[in-house]
Amino acid sequence: MNSGEQPIAIDTEPRAIDWIDRDSSLVWHGFTQMATYRENYPVMVDMAEGRELIDVDGHKYIDAISSLWVNTLGHRVKELDDALVEQLGKVAHATMLGNGSTVVVQLAEALSRVVPVDGPHFLFASDGASAVEQALKIAFQYYVNRGERGRQRFLALGDAYHGDTVGAMSLGDSGFESAIFDPLRFATLRTPGYGDPGWLDQALLMLDAHANDICCAVVEPLVQGASGMMIARPEDVLSFREACAGAGVLFVADEVATGFGRTGAMFASEICGIQPDILCIGKGLTGGYLPMSATVVTEPVYAEFLGADLGPRTFYHGHSYGGNALCAAVALKHLELMENWKVLDNVAARTAQLSELLDQHVAGHRAVKEIRHQGLMAGIELDSPGRDHRWGRKVCGNAVKRGVLLRPLGDVVVLVLPLTITEEEVGKVISVLADSLDVLMDA
Amino acid sequence: MNSGEQPIAIDTEPRAIDWIDRDSSLVWHGFTQMATYRENYPVMVDMAEGRELIDVDGHKYIDAISSLWVNTLGHRVKELDDALVEQLGKVAHATMLGNGSTVVVQLAEALSRVVPVDGPHFLFASDGASAVEQALKIAFQYYVNRGERGRQRFLALGDAYHGDTVGAMSLGDSGFESAIFDPLRFATLRTPGYGDPGWLDQALLMLDAHANDICCAVVEPLVQGASGMMIARPEDVLSFREACAGAGVLFVADEVATGFGRTGAMFASEICGIQPDILCIGKGLTGGYLPMSATVVTEPVYAEFLGADLGPRTFYHGHSYGGNALCAAVALKHLELMENWKVLDNVAARTAQLSELLDQHVAGHRAVKEIRHQGLMAGIELDSPGRDHRWGRKVCGNAVKRGVLLRPLGDVVVLVLPLTITEEEVGKVISVLADSLDVLMDA
Repeated sequence: MNSGEQPIAIDTEPRAIDWIDRDSSLVWHGFTQMATYRENYPVMVDMAEGRELIDVDGHKYIDAISSLWVNTLGHRVKELDDALVEQLGKVAHATMLGNGSTVVVQLAEALSRVVPVDGPHFLFASDGASAVEQALKIAFQYYVNRGERGRQRFLALGDAYHGDTVGAMSLGDSGFESAIFDPLRFATLRTPGYGDPGWLDQALLMLDAHANDICCAVVEPLVQGASGMMIARPEDVLSFREACAGAGVLFVADEVATGFGRTGAMFASEICGIQPDILCIGKGLTGGYLPMSATVVTEPVYAEFLGADLGPRTFYHGHSYGGNALCAAVALKHLELMENWKVLDNVAARTAQLSELLDQHVAGHRAVKEIRHQGLMAGIELDSPGRDHRWGRKVCGNAVKRGVLLRPLGDVVVLVLPLTITEEEVGKVISVLADSLDVLMDA
Repeated sequence: MNSGEQPIAIDTEPRAIDWIDRDSSLVWHGFTQMATYRENYPVMVDMAEGRELIDVDGHKYIDAISSLWVNTLGHRVKELDDALVEQLGKVAHATMLGNGSTVVVQLAEALSRVVPVDGPHFLFASDGASAVEQALKIAFQYYVNRGERGRQRFLALGDAYHGDTVGAMSLGDSGFESAIFDPLRFATLRTPGYGDPGWLDQALLMLDAHANDICCAVVEPLVQGASGMMIARPEDVLSFREACAGAGVLFVADEVATGFGRTGAMFASEICGIQPDILCIGKGLTGGYLPMSATVVTEPVYAEFLGADLGPRTFYHGHSYGGNALCAAVALKHLELMENWKVLDNVAARTAQLSELLDQHVAGHRAVKEIRHQGLMAGIELDSPGRDHRWGRKVCGNAVKRGVLLRPLGDVVVLVLPLTITEEEVGKVISVLADSLDVLMDA
């Protein structure tokens, strides 16, 4: 398979060089070693159109990581732009602390019709990690408010990733060199991850052993994305959820990455047949336009926080921009477009195509060890001779030069495709990926 | 003093009742007891104009809390709206992880000319708490990268508030009933707060006693806002900063609340004559339009994170929407307007007026115990017979009914005025406040 694309010389274009100089002298990029930033083919994005990002020299790149797993409908969606402009004509931001905002009410009403949570209540924030922090504090205080002081521990999965703030990082496993921060973390009970076929049995044993100590189990349902797209059997997630209910332990589903269509359903919880007690959403909530996240809780969880004004049952937590009106307006229109455009139908069709093309052109490649995919999320694990060979980096660099923006997780090449991606674009992504693997092996 | 305003019957207006029903059935408001939400005169904001919020029934309220301390130039600023629309025509969001975005480079360049940090580098996030989490993890890892493993503790002030995520909450003191979360917090060495005139001496003693254990001291320079506007002598903050430098302890300034003109200078650090090693900014960064925060570090701090690609010196932390292009475009235009409109000149004039009017009409009031103010931030501590009398709530409710949106911190009535507020508007705020105190005492 040959994509026929001429490699872009992005690292020697004068405008790119100038912008990368300016950029790297001031901007510290997350999860990025800045000493080697410019060697790894950074794309200096200036514009975008549809599923393509356009750099300062006018080169176009298919956004095959959805601008870090957030974009759903593509870039520069006229309807989302219009919704933002309309909201600008009303108000950009009004506080949720003790006061209300009409567009946030409308968003909550629209969300309440799609989230897999019974009698939902919505507490908004901006960063996805903040939604996880809210979830863990709500679960903890829920039992304090009920007078069950013994439930102070958390149960989470091996290879879990829930964000980088200290609480979210405490629920996460030791990936991303995070062990150095152990002195700051609270201790979490940890089961094996989805990569271990026996994870469920271990999880059930730990749940049983600690049934009276645990306030909640926290799970990325179906797909552990940041660990390199590890995928569970849906029925195992269901069994674990049911066991948590049986043990009186709250079940928290972190769908920040999996929510809003990425896995094939609106939420991965639906594929697993579960309804969590607490749901975390973010990333795709605004279609990839603006930072907004939310923690969604069931009516019984919410009810435990009702009490006297200024009293101790209140949840004293809130971010200044939680429920921002501009973010809410985009999120509201985004939900409408997801439905009107039958976006999930396209996800189903492109998922089938992606699966077939991965089988045909990538699965048997000598550089590839294993492919894991669910919906429009895929992890291609390379058969690397060692992490210091930086195969993931090199394959993604090859792809960038050929017009497809990829970013690896170690030696796993990750695809997180926009939900409105076309048949032709999926074809190009896989063709470029196959080329990029060839180039790696021929080097 | 009588404002001559007829109280608004906001709680019996049919549109408000309907919207509050819809709101409170689905939206969980931060720092809000939802069982008593509707009794505390929530304003259902639908629109805004200038410094006024407009509710669903068309009633107008001066936004005397700047939509929770974030708004700077007022609402619906044409230039900010235009900047957002222009950016919408380019791209709403592109990831910062390993890639760049032109508007973020421009923002970093503009910020680098105003932040009180030498050789600044900018790591963006969305929630203010996330900027604090980044700061504390950077300070911690800075010493790990230098091979000084013994510096694992944090020094923070009494009455401190740095946000609600677990790490930020660990740096914070026990306000807002947060003691129930002690089992989740890491331990922090704590000095007295600004309310104790001896705070500096104690802080210096603790610094001395733990000079080799501490990675950083974290301070809200000049004003501890959330504790009820406790104000330090600038020279004390300077002395503490100098002592930290002498002890080889990083100094973190949390200017999420005080930054961008609120205290009279662009940053409170300037008033104190200090330059922190790490600075946290948020809230006013986008003029109150959109969620954006940043952690700013000096060149020497940044340099300790440079190393091999994928190596352990890297800062493995990053939020998906950090460096969002729409947020950056607004923040960039906001900085330009702050300068072109000479906003700080208005802050100086209105600060003098505010001070005089507080003296004349509020300071001697029998309901008032103490007034603390700095720039356009003020705390009016009520001489309440006890927290359960809810004086703070009642005074703010009285003000809301008279067209001024206030929100208390316990029995401290807080003013955080938009920086472009007019002389007439400041007059109305104080007039309504004085009336609201009278009504409380006459009840």
